[in-house]
Amino acid sequence: MPTPAGAQPVTLLRQLRRADYRHWHTITTRWMDNDVYGHVNNVHYYSYFDTAVNQYLIGAGALDPQHGAVIGLVVETACNYFQPLAFPDSVTAGIRVTRIGHSSVRYEVGLFRGDEDRVCAAGHFVHVLVDRASRRPVGLPAALRQAVDALMVAVPPP
Amino acid sequence: MPTPAGAQPVTLLRQLRRADYRHWHTITTRWMDNDVYGHVNNVHYYSYFDTAVNQYLIGAGALDPQHGAVIGLVVETACNYFQPLAFPDSVTAGIRVTRIGHSSVRYEVGLFRGDEDRVCAAGHFVHVLVDRASRRPVGLPAALRQAVDALMVAVPPP
Amino acid sequence: MPTPAGAQPVTLLRQLRRADYRHWHTITTRWMDNDVYGHVNNVHYYSYFDTAVNQYLIGAGALDPQHGAVIGLVVETACNYFQPLAFPDSVTAGIRVTRIGHSSVRYEVGLFRGDEDRVCAAGHFVHVLVDRASRRPVGLPAALRQAVDALMVAVPPP
Amino acid sequence: MPTPAGAQPVTLLRQLRRADYRHWHTITTRWMDNDVYGHVNNVHYYSYFDTAVNQYLIGAGALDPQHGAVIGLVVETACNYFQPLAFPDSVTAGIRVTRIGHSSVRYEVGLFRGDEDRVCAAGHFVHVLVDRASRRPVGLPAALRQAVDALMVAVPPP
Repeated sequence: MPTPAGAQPVTLLRQLRRADYRHWHTITTRWMDNDVYGHVNNVHYYSYFDTAVNQYLIGAGALDPQHGAVIGLVVETACNYFQPLAFPDSVTAGIRVTRIGHSSVRYEVGLFRGDEDRVCAAGHFVHVLVDRASRRPVGLPAALRQAVDALMVAVPPP
Repeated sequence: MPTPAGAQPVTLLRQLRRADYRHWHTITTRWMDNDVYGHVNNVHYYSYFDTAVNQYLIGAGALDPQHGAVIGLVVETACNYFQPLAFPDSVTAGIRVTRIGHSSVRYEVGLFRGDEDRVCAAGHFVHVLVDRASRRPVGLPAALRQAVDALMVAVPPP
Repeated sequence: MPTPAGAQPVTLLRQLRRADYRHWHTITTRWMDNDVYGHVNNVHYYSYFDTAVNQYLIGAGALDPQHGAVIGLVVETACNYFQPLAFPDSVTAGIRVTRIGHSSVRYEVGLFRGDEDRVCAAGHFVHVLVDRASRRPVGLPAALRQAVDALMVAVPPP
Repeated sequence: MPTPAGAQPVTLLRQLRRADYRHWHTITTRWMDNDVYGHVNNVHYYSYFDTAVNQYLIGAGALDPQHGAVIGLVVETACNYFQPLAFPDSVTAGIRVTRIGHSSVRYEVGLFRGDEDRVCAAGHFVHVLVDRASRRPVGLPAALRQAVDALMVAVPPP
């Protein structure tokens, strides 16, 4: 990642609001999410991302983590942090999909504190769908395709 | 982040080897790092990043998390995952610095499994240095400046 | 820890229900709480304990983790696991206090899945109240005393 | 859990030293192990327990978390905290076994900071061995029996 990945996205992401997302999930922060500086450590934001998206997929019948033949492996993640979250904040995670490939999906997640309308942090991760046993990429199963289509948004080109 | 951040970096990052980093730190994986798919969950990689860099800074006398007047807040993180890590792997984290601003530092971290020479995952985070009390950006203290200079590498332009 | 906390409680704890607790707090489980066996790893239960009690104390004005003169250090913890929790379960943590010493408090926590009336897991931790700077034990501040009195229950002797 | 595990051990545990354990494993602490008070949060100690024991079992060929027919479920855990650990401490976990039942094992773990000879924290957990599919208790497989026999110590009655 030789390019300064931070700057340009910031301009765009600062604008992100609840209405930019398609599905919402409540996350309760935990005491140990806070690090020595008194705010949620940057690492935990990614556990909120995982949680929001996988909970959506499980609820939609599009993911069976224990027995499904197809699972999603994470190949890329990123996050920009604008305002700190801190326990005991309640967090709403908004999710959306901005790219669907043959065997991959890009999920974007925004984290909102309490009733605020602007993201405190926003990021994304990319799932590659693979066969559970062989770990080789496969096409999106129909139920997953339907679930992610429902989250798809058009994003203007950079 | 409207741009497909995944693809181009991959080409470059696949080449990263131990010699591309400037300082190394051993991380022991933990039982609960593995998620239901039997590999280290993508979230924990970021705790390895934090750990490697902060341990270096503390050892260099450049960071006092409890009492120092200047602390580093994370404003941006990203990671690409090439090969899975899994408990009980032993991991070596290599670190380097690719950008030093007036009040920010970009740390890049590569994670190596056992004795392997190519990264399993590589990413970065950006610290903004702030006054502990006011949380306003400040210039790099001398000890920090010296510590990060020692990690600086020239990265070819994209 | 003057009383044998381990054995007898088992018989008792199996009987514990929502009505045995005095305050409740919702915990949302997370994807990475599940370990390779598909259930919440035993470790995370303790983060639920911390979270429920500290959130109660903060809400009651009895704990200021960042600036308060008195903080609680954990000297003892234990948990019995009866039924597994698993992401994406929603968990209710019930809390109560069963012993208040000059500078210590024993908090007991029960974890309930969804609407169930019997605990899936039950445990406790003991806080010793100390001066933040000296880390020497101190008497309970008035606000804390009031907050824990409100959670106090009489427990029959073993 | 027929024996009162809580109280008497305190007196005993304060005496525990490296020589009281049978196998050792190095744990590297992590930045985010520290909570807002600047020490390793009480929760993480349990992840050190899990890690030390499971790593021993995997190394001994007595546990295959992904495919083995028999897995260990944790039904009871406890820990006493004597001296705080803090990142970036290096920790040695000593393990031993004090009870082997038909389908259960009690593992005890002591955590040592750096080169110190007395435990900073000591605790235990009880595994019930179950069939992976049915989750019903089963007798200890031979390889496991051999591995835990090697850790067995006689503990004087309370």
